[in-house]
Amino acid sequence: MATADLNQLGQQAQQASYTLGLLSTTKKNDVLLAMARALTDQQDAILAANARDLENPQVLAKFIDRLKLTADRITAMATGLKQVAALPDPIGNVDRAWRNEAGLTIAKERVPLGVIGMIFEARPNVTVDASALCFKTGNAVILRGGKEALHSNQALVKVLRSALKAENVDENAIQLIQDTSHETAGKFMQLTDYVDVLIPRGSARLIQTVLTKATVPVIETGAGNCHVYVDKDAQLKMATDIIINGKVQRPSVCNATEKVLIHKDVAAAYLPTIVKALRDNGVEVRGDAATRAIVSDVIPATEADWGTEYNDLIIAIKVVDSEAAAIAHINHYNTQHSEAIVTDNYQAGKVFQQRINAACVYINASTRFTDGFEFGFGAEIGISTQKLHARGPMGLAELTSYKYVIDGNGQVRQ
Amino acid sequence: MATADLNQLGQQAQQASYTLGLLSTTKKNDVLLAMARALTDQQDAILAANARDLENPQVLAKFIDRLKLTADRITAMATGLKQVAALPDPIGNVDRAWRNEAGLTIAKERVPLGVIGMIFEARPNVTVDASALCFKTGNAVILRGGKEALHSNQALVKVLRSALKAENVDENAIQLIQDTSHETAGKFMQLTDYVDVLIPRGSARLIQTVLTKATVPVIETGAGNCHVYVDKDAQLKMATDIIINGKVQRPSVCNATEKVLIHKDVAAAYLPTIVKALRDNGVEVRGDAATRAIVSDVIPATEADWGTEYNDLIIAIKVVDSEAAAIAHINHYNTQHSEAIVTDNYQAGKVFQQRINAACVYINASTRFTDGFEFGFGAEIGISTQKLHARGPMGLAELTSYKYVIDGNGQVRQ
Repeated sequence: MATADLNQLGQQAQQASYTLGLLSTTKKNDVLLAMARALTDQQDAILAANARDLENPQVLAKFIDRLKLTADRITAMATGLKQVAALPDPIGNVDRAWRNEAGLTIAKERVPLGVIGMIFEARPNVTVDASALCFKTGNAVILRGGKEALHSNQALVKVLRSALKAENVDENAIQLIQDTSHETAGKFMQLTDYVDVLIPRGSARLIQTVLTKATVPVIETGAGNCHVYVDKDAQLKMATDIIINGKVQRPSVCNATEKVLIHKDVAAAYLPTIVKALRDNGVEVRGDAATRAIVSDVIPATEADWGTEYNDLIIAIKVVDSEAAAIAHINHYNTQHSEAIVTDNYQAGKVFQQRINAACVYINASTRFTDGFEFGFGAEIGISTQKLHARGPMGLAELTSYKYVIDGNGQVRQ
Repeated sequence: MATADLNQLGQQAQQASYTLGLLSTTKKNDVLLAMARALTDQQDAILAANARDLENPQVLAKFIDRLKLTADRITAMATGLKQVAALPDPIGNVDRAWRNEAGLTIAKERVPLGVIGMIFEARPNVTVDASALCFKTGNAVILRGGKEALHSNQALVKVLRSALKAENVDENAIQLIQDTSHETAGKFMQLTDYVDVLIPRGSARLIQTVLTKATVPVIETGAGNCHVYVDKDAQLKMATDIIINGKVQRPSVCNATEKVLIHKDVAAAYLPTIVKALRDNGVEVRGDAATRAIVSDVIPATEADWGTEYNDLIIAIKVVDSEAAAIAHINHYNTQHSEAIVTDNYQAGKVFQQRINAACVYINASTRFTDGFEFGFGAEIGISTQKLHARGPMGLAELTSYKYVIDGNGQVRQ
């Protein structure tokens, strides 16, 4: 894609963003409901486009499920749009307002970020989800989906834009980059004149590429090497429930539990139980030397294991000498996503929460709760693993910026 | 500087950051006061080091004033430290806390960002200011100052670290990169394993270099191509006060007024007055054709003028057909810093505040108020011109992140 064309796309998005920021909440909700109806009405065209993507012999078997759309999945997308319409609108909220020494009234008011760039892989539902969240918060969005899903994304964006047009809203609120080459993606990541923030969603590799190449500010999402630390004062039955839930319920996602640390005082009593429970659930168990000294047929864990996010039915267990050792290990190897301690000791729990460097730090609960819906945000555009702007689950509020709106009566600075 | 040495610096900062986050507010304030005393006590060593920097024949005349330290300036630095000690501590504040559907208590708690990298130029006071603000917010800081100020920065950091040591706080809370080569600066900007955020302060060129080279998240600061729009319903005397204050009071800073837009209905009446007032204050006036049609000896403004931040006693004036034209011009050429309208028309003022894309949007006040002290923040580490994380003046609150601290009693996800 020529640089000029990409610039034009950016310019169009920026122009659209100026009008989106002025829409009333009611109007935005009406448009979201119109999009939901349009998805249902134009379901056949979407499924036909999706079938073309699925026919591509180069699509790997493991991506088929992510890529495939069905009538049910389209209904789920439409339901998602209706849910976003029902959420409160953060735009225009004033975080605080005050009068300064010079007598100026200063109000810190929530505004859209402007233009959001979404870079994602094979899941076409991201096209609809991200468009809905960006639109509700008055942001224009430029979508760059994976090449495997190009026809599906084209069809979905066409439907969403038809609803924008029918509602007399600038269609360029939602745009798709049709050229899925790496070269164009690279240019897109440097479109600083028009794009205010990039949100990559997908594999660790995709996110790393964006972090390395982008000059547009990035919100890093998704990597989750999450730990559960079983303290010496843990209820062991509770620990098992939390570990099994964290590992088994949905092993492919970023808030799944990947590592277990066990205090040495309970290792001998607990290891046989937890290893059996994990294996009964189909999990491959790896462990350090101390673990294998107690359950000898555990696969040896290597140094690489401690830093790996398996996203699979695999877990690694390490025996630690103290809570301090558990905290040091976690802060060294984690991705700052979600960490949990199981303990009945008040002090141990509070120290863990204070000292662990992560977006979400749990006492006696599964790491799987790190999720915009579980947090009550009603939506989620991703889970941030950086500390700037947003950390943890990102809902509508995290898609806003602010400006200072200042009223005077002729003040000049002394 | 070898990559290994830079990594060690980063590692030391990260280690220090873990302990800084746990210090009580009282302890942090005591350390800041100890730093203030140490600056005064060791004033002679600081002035001697500064003299060595000033002896360098390569220091440009225009940088001498920025670089030069005096007893008064050291006292001002010490006073600054005491002021930061007196400010409220944002760390540990809970923005909000709630119970979710599963019965988990979720608290969004303010925590330090971690390790902050400051990249700056010739002003050694930034060393002390930035160290104070970072320390108060529990952040470790790595400073990379300009080569012209190396001896001064070394002396200042030595003094600050001596106070940390005397107070039994990890000295690596404050570190200086001694190698001021561009190569080392480039590596520093990519130290993602240890540095959580980079804040560049200085020239547009410095900031552009950091934005282009960094893989660590950056907060963009400082560029200010600020406009004053004189509406047809403006009080013209007020407009003159605001424009003269904005341009003349301190022309070298980022919140200085650089451009004036005048509604065509008042151009003929107002232009002779404002041009004379500017010239009486030593300002070079440039203007578009419409301006020159009214005041013929105004220097012609070229296209390049509209996008230029002069940081000098120069201003460019343009006549516009309408408020909408003024807004479009500003949103096209501005740096999203500070913009002002002068008007007595309620509607015109509100439309301007809503539609202008900038950190601070004023009605009837000077752009010079965009400042952490004037805003009442009590301190300022810079003025952000991006929309992510922080926008406008950045005080202590903007040097924090948050984490979700979550208490359960065995919850697993359904």
